[in-house]
Amino acid sequence: MKTYKIAVLAGDGIGPEVMQQALKVLEVVSNKFGFAIQSEAALVGGAAIDEHGEALPASTLDLCKRSDAILFGSVGGPKWTNLPPAQQPERASLLPLRKTFDLFCNLRPGKIYPAFAELSPLHPRTSSQGMDILCVRELTGGIYFGEKGRSQDSAFDTQTYSVKEIERITRVAFEAATKRNNKVTSIDKANVLATSVLWREVVSRIAKDYPGVELEHMYIDNAAMQLIRAPKHFDVLLCDNLFGDILSDEIAAIAGSLGLLPSASLNGSNFGLYEPAGGSAPDIAGQGIANPVAQILSAALLLRFSCGEEAAARAIEAAVEQTLERGIVTRDINPQSTYSTDDIGNAIVNAI
Amino acid sequence: MKTYKIAVLAGDGIGPEVMQQALKVLEVVSNKFGFAIQSEAALVGGAAIDEHGEALPASTLDLCKRSDAILFGSVGGPKWTNLPPAQQPERASLLPLRKTFDLFCNLRPGKIYPAFAELSPLHPRTSSQGMDILCVRELTGGIYFGEKGRSQDSAFDTQTYSVKEIERITRVAFEAATKRNNKVTSIDKANVLATSVLWREVVSRIAKDYPGVELEHMYIDNAAMQLIRAPKHFDVLLCDNLFGDILSDEIAAIAGSLGLLPSASLNGSNFGLYEPAGGSAPDIAGQGIANPVAQILSAALLLRFSCGEEAAARAIEAAVEQTLERGIVTRDINPQSTYSTDDIGNAIVNAI
Ligand SMILES: CC(C)[C@H](C(=O)O)[C@@H](O)C(=O)O
Ligand SMILES: CC(C)[C@H](C(=O)O)[C@@H](O)C(=O)O
Repeated sequence: MKTYKIAVLAGDGIGPEVMQQALKVLEVVSNKFGFAIQSEAALVGGAAIDEHGEALPASTLDLCKRSDAILFGSVGGPKWTNLPPAQQPERASLLPLRKTFDLFCNLRPGKIYPAFAELSPLHPRTSSQGMDILCVRELTGGIYFGEKGRSQDSAFDTQTYSVKEIERITRVAFEAATKRNNKVTSIDKANVLATSVLWREVVSRIAKDYPGVELEHMYIDNAAMQLIRAPKHFDVLLCDNLFGDILSDEIAAIAGSLGLLPSASLNGSNFGLYEPAGGSAPDIAGQGIANPVAQILSAALLLRFSCGEEAAARAIEAAVEQTLERGIVTRDINPQSTYSTDDIGNAIVNAI
Repeated sequence: MKTYKIAVLAGDGIGPEVMQQALKVLEVVSNKFGFAIQSEAALVGGAAIDEHGEALPASTLDLCKRSDAILFGSVGGPKWTNLPPAQQPERASLLPLRKTFDLFCNLRPGKIYPAFAELSPLHPRTSSQGMDILCVRELTGGIYFGEKGRSQDSAFDTQTYSVKEIERITRVAFEAATKRNNKVTSIDKANVLATSVLWREVVSRIAKDYPGVELEHMYIDNAAMQLIRAPKHFDVLLCDNLFGDILSDEIAAIAGSLGLLPSASLNGSNFGLYEPAGGSAPDIAGQGIANPVAQILSAALLLRFSCGEEAAARAIEAAVEQTLERGIVTRDINPQSTYSTDDIGNAIVNAI
């Protein structure tokens, strides 16, 4: 029987409780679809700082290296906010993981579910039309990883992009578009940045290999505006690391349902890191009311991209959709709801 | 009689027609408040490219140098979109103007007017609570003006900030906050950028001089999200050049009424450049239906900051508010409206 080894890094806050539901779902689909999931847990983030003095201990990194994929929960909380920014749990775990495994490609779907359009902070005249965007973000280059420095009276950061780096993320975006609505909006600030001029050139060249896909270039400031005015305009959004960081969060806000949004960080091999788009929500941790859907959908992406178990991934996604449609949701989605984290997990398991 | 010399750069698209209204208003308030406006026009943007081969001809720059302030319209249009990004009208006129006059401080108010809350693309449950943000954006530093370069297979941009640059823009933000709601939200990405770590340090230090003002630090990605979820949370938003570019446009989108939003770019002396936040709207140019309010409010800011004519500035602002409240608006604000650009200008003039 095919066996996949998964590193389970649940993290802090609601991480462990929603992770439990995702593992339950993985157990059930693997039985149903005839493969095995061998999961092993390790500490990450604040929990790892408390125990080992660092957000990504060597033992955790080792486990990841021995695994086929990482299922990541969420990290951080008030206990660690006074640490210097560079040592904060999220940054100090995610950036080295991305770099170590060359996870250059971040996929973040942002969706207004028709049944939950009222969750969107947008006016119903817009949200009722829906939104279905896939944000493809470059994740290992740009100003995040360029040379930086500091003197007494100034500081600098460098944003560098190579043709190769732009090419590989662009191909991911265009491939994705062919399976969606054949439209790529590439974000840059080519009227100001040299890296953006290169970005635009390379994207335009690669686009020629995909004649069926429409390409549009948009300045980052305009995109920040248009996403709010006309979210339905967009299909695949192609962004560098910094612009993707900003716009993917803007999209999540527009969707209005952070608890439903998964993400995948990939490197072109089967390996990947999968995590909910939302945070560790320390304010509701331990109460059994956290929304496990984003974590469960992240597990579905893991099956799709790291295991090639497309049927199992779809089974999870269909079960989630069915559960949502039946109104079985946590209170972040419906304040009147009394369903617990566990109830949602069970409903999804039963629907599989 | 006090006389102020103004360089009038109307630009392209709707620029000239809305500028005409602003000049009419300036004429009337100057008579009423006993000062004189001596205005002289020059070409800028696409119109200047067509006539002189460059977006900011030496003769235009000369006029600006001989003036007390610049009243800027808006530039660009389909005719020039095929120019290389760096030569496009907006960029090729605004960036050199900012640099030449050291206009380090960009002020952009973003407001949901209670009477026009329905204009906001946000859900009424949020927009009905209103929004009143002053975005204070650093305008002559950062990645816009750092060293940049290009080789065959890569490109780079550098973001540099000095303590001095951060100090001066921070003081503007805190001074503004003391005249508003005593709250500054400073935007950075201190978990990733060295310039942001410095930014945060300097802002925190300057904040100590303003014990009555609450300071909050927020990551740019979180800000892009929170502006949509809870725009009322913000009072003064303090941003570097790039983050301010993105968030000020996001705020304008949330306000939903680009035609109403002015801006000021200042250098600490009396000199300044004043322009509407919106663009040149070439699709409606020449039809006499463009909204002149943002241009008129920009003229009010000019009187306030460059002429010290506070009473005259307030008179314009009060007349605008009164006119809006009476429902005398262009069709961008009310699709049923039949008022022309000229009607709005006249109504504001009459209300003064
Ligand atoms: C924690 C931080 C460094 C990270 C980023 O900016 O990439 C986070 O915001 C994200 O988007 O995953
Ligand atoms: C035209 C462009 C260079 C400019 C900027 O990015 O500063 C514009 O977007 C603005 O915000 O005034």
